[in-house]
Amino acid sequence: MDCGGWEGALDGPTAYNENRLVYISDSCKRKIQRVSELLLSCEARPVDAQSLSACGESFEKCRDTIIARTKGLAILVHELRRLAPVSREAEVGRGLVELCNLVVALLECSSHAGYLAALEVPGSQPARPGPVEQYRVSALEQEVEQRCRGLRSLPLGELSPAALSDLAQGLSRALRGLAQCCRPPAEAARDPLAREQFRLGLRGASCCARALLSCLRELRAAPSERARARCVVFGGPLLHSVRALVGLATEPQFLGRPAVLPSQARAIHASILEGARRVASSCLLLVQWIRDVSLLTASGTPVPTFRERMKVLAGGVSDSCHLLSQVLRDNDNLTIFNPSPAN
Amino acid sequence: MDCGGWEGALDGPTAYNENRLVYISDSCKRKIQRVSELLLSCEARPVDAQSLSACGESFEKCRDTIIARTKGLAILVHELRRLAPVSREAEVGRGLVELCNLVVALLECSSHAGYLAALEVPGSQPARPGPVEQYRVSALEQEVEQRCRGLRSLPLGELSPAALSDLAQGLSRALRGLAQCCRPPAEAARDPLAREQFRLGLRGASCCARALLSCLRELRAAPSERARARCVVFGGPLLHSVRALVGLATEPQFLGRPAVLPSQARAIHASILEGARRVASSCLLLVQWIRDVSLLTASGTPVPTFRERMKVLAGGVSDSCHLLSQVLRDNDNLTIFNPSPAN
Repeated sequence: MDCGGWEGALDGPTAYNENRLVYISDSCKRKIQRVSELLLSCEARPVDAQSLSACGESFEKCRDTIIARTKGLAILVHELRRLAPVSREAEVGRGLVELCNLVVALLECSSHAGYLAALEVPGSQPARPGPVEQYRVSALEQEVEQRCRGLRSLPLGELSPAALSDLAQGLSRALRGLAQCCRPPAEAARDPLAREQFRLGLRGASCCARALLSCLRELRAAPSERARARCVVFGGPLLHSVRALVGLATEPQFLGRPAVLPSQARAIHASILEGARRVASSCLLLVQWIRDVSLLTASGTPVPTFRERMKVLAGGVSDSCHLLSQVLRDNDNLTIFNPSPAN
Repeated sequence: MDCGGWEGALDGPTAYNENRLVYISDSCKRKIQRVSELLLSCEARPVDAQSLSACGESFEKCRDTIIARTKGLAILVHELRRLAPVSREAEVGRGLVELCNLVVALLECSSHAGYLAALEVPGSQPARPGPVEQYRVSALEQEVEQRCRGLRSLPLGELSPAALSDLAQGLSRALRGLAQCCRPPAEAARDPLAREQFRLGLRGASCCARALLSCLRELRAAPSERARARCVVFGGPLLHSVRALVGLATEPQFLGRPAVLPSQARAIHASILEGARRVASSCLLLVQWIRDVSLLTASGTPVPTFRERMKVLAGGVSDSCHLLSQVLRDNDNLTIFNPSPAN
């Protein structure tokens, strides 16, 4: 899941810097939370994501990639400590987006590593893939949602022609991706009605997208709050038509079957996921703090405890990264998180 | 605004009676509230509704129709007092729907009467109609919303083939109505982009409707909670595409201009609207009480105060009807509600 789409928002006028940092922090939080929900459930499935291209199908490669990424995370957090909350909001914003991308890649890789590690236990049966990869379609839905939200939340001055073109291209790309994802389940559906629903659902989303794109052209040609309001109004049907399509595509019948794991394998899987969850939580706390401080600073409130609190939060990220590395290096050592291996 | 679409829901199995009464009460409340919001604002405009066909363009005819309707309301409330909360929920439900239809017609007529009465004051300038009649398009939006809500809230057993056909026909009718309503503003729009947006917005709504209708066919052929869930999922895009279209059509530029009224005319208009508002409020309290009692009865809780409270609420409806008639009979008597004639 790429968060690069938000960076375009960083080239606008400086007047909205504070709001922008809050907007970026909120987007990062939302994305990390959503990816955690999708990838850190108890179902063991392989992950299909670009961030995994370096890992291949070997647990050891995954592990090494994750450990390298935790080191990257430590460097990034150190950099953010140095920058925030001073005047360089644009750099802090870029740092947050980078942090978010890294955490997402780390979660993707950890979820996949958890699956591979669990499969090494004798008696484990691999997942059976279905025609739909839930994570992939959900990421596309998230992409559309994120862009519609930007259209509503960003100050008008930031919706520059370049930003709007980028937004329109991002939406078109996400819809093409969705159309691709929907082809296999539509073909797999035995029921002709379901096939028709995929076809009509896709057409609905593409009609709604065309209406929104027309509003975007108007906003681009003559920026005004009225034109933006139209975009927001026509963003609603697009978002809901994409949700309906994703809802249909992620019905259980299209998702295949997760791995069937004996209890020892389940415990290994759970402890790797728990390690990843702690990294995500510690990063969310850090992002939330930067958000809060940027709001306080914008309203002129001094934050004397800033450096101290930042140090504690950065320590939390570092500890959680250390734990995750440890559990990956020695995945027999199940006592780290005391997961219950029973049942 | 016709509420007849809900009556179809009254032919299902008896097992869901209690829920059904709550569902009908909630629908009635929502409709009365929405119509009040639309018609009892301070803007003076004529009302274009079927319920007014008996009134024509004369204040006196409107007044007589309203007074006759308040008498009909009194009879209906008396009937409801006799029926509720005993076992005849189906009759109570029908009574509630009838009450709702009558209150809506009364509000439509009162709003129109307020406009006509205000225009009789020297110096008043009539409203200038725009290409869109806001009340009409909002009623169509409400119609779609109501039907989508029924799809989500009603027990599966009540979504009989007949009820689903009725629902599908109601949706198609509402969309045809919307297409008709959107033609004049699309033609009136000087801006070619706005014309295109109407066209694309309509196409989006019709694509989303087709997807939902396909799901309805499936639900009809083989009722199941899974099939219903698909209908609910595909109801979202339809509702939002209709909302977007109505949002576009009700932009201020398409709504014409309300009447321009001197302060005496404003006071007359305000006092008639206040009379109508009190009728609506007293009826809402009555509907709410029937809803609460039906829930309590369903859970086996006795309601010893039922008859007493029902008498008080019916008295409230009767008082408000009396006040409305009085203010219409003597619309110089502005002291009834003590509206401030200043400003």
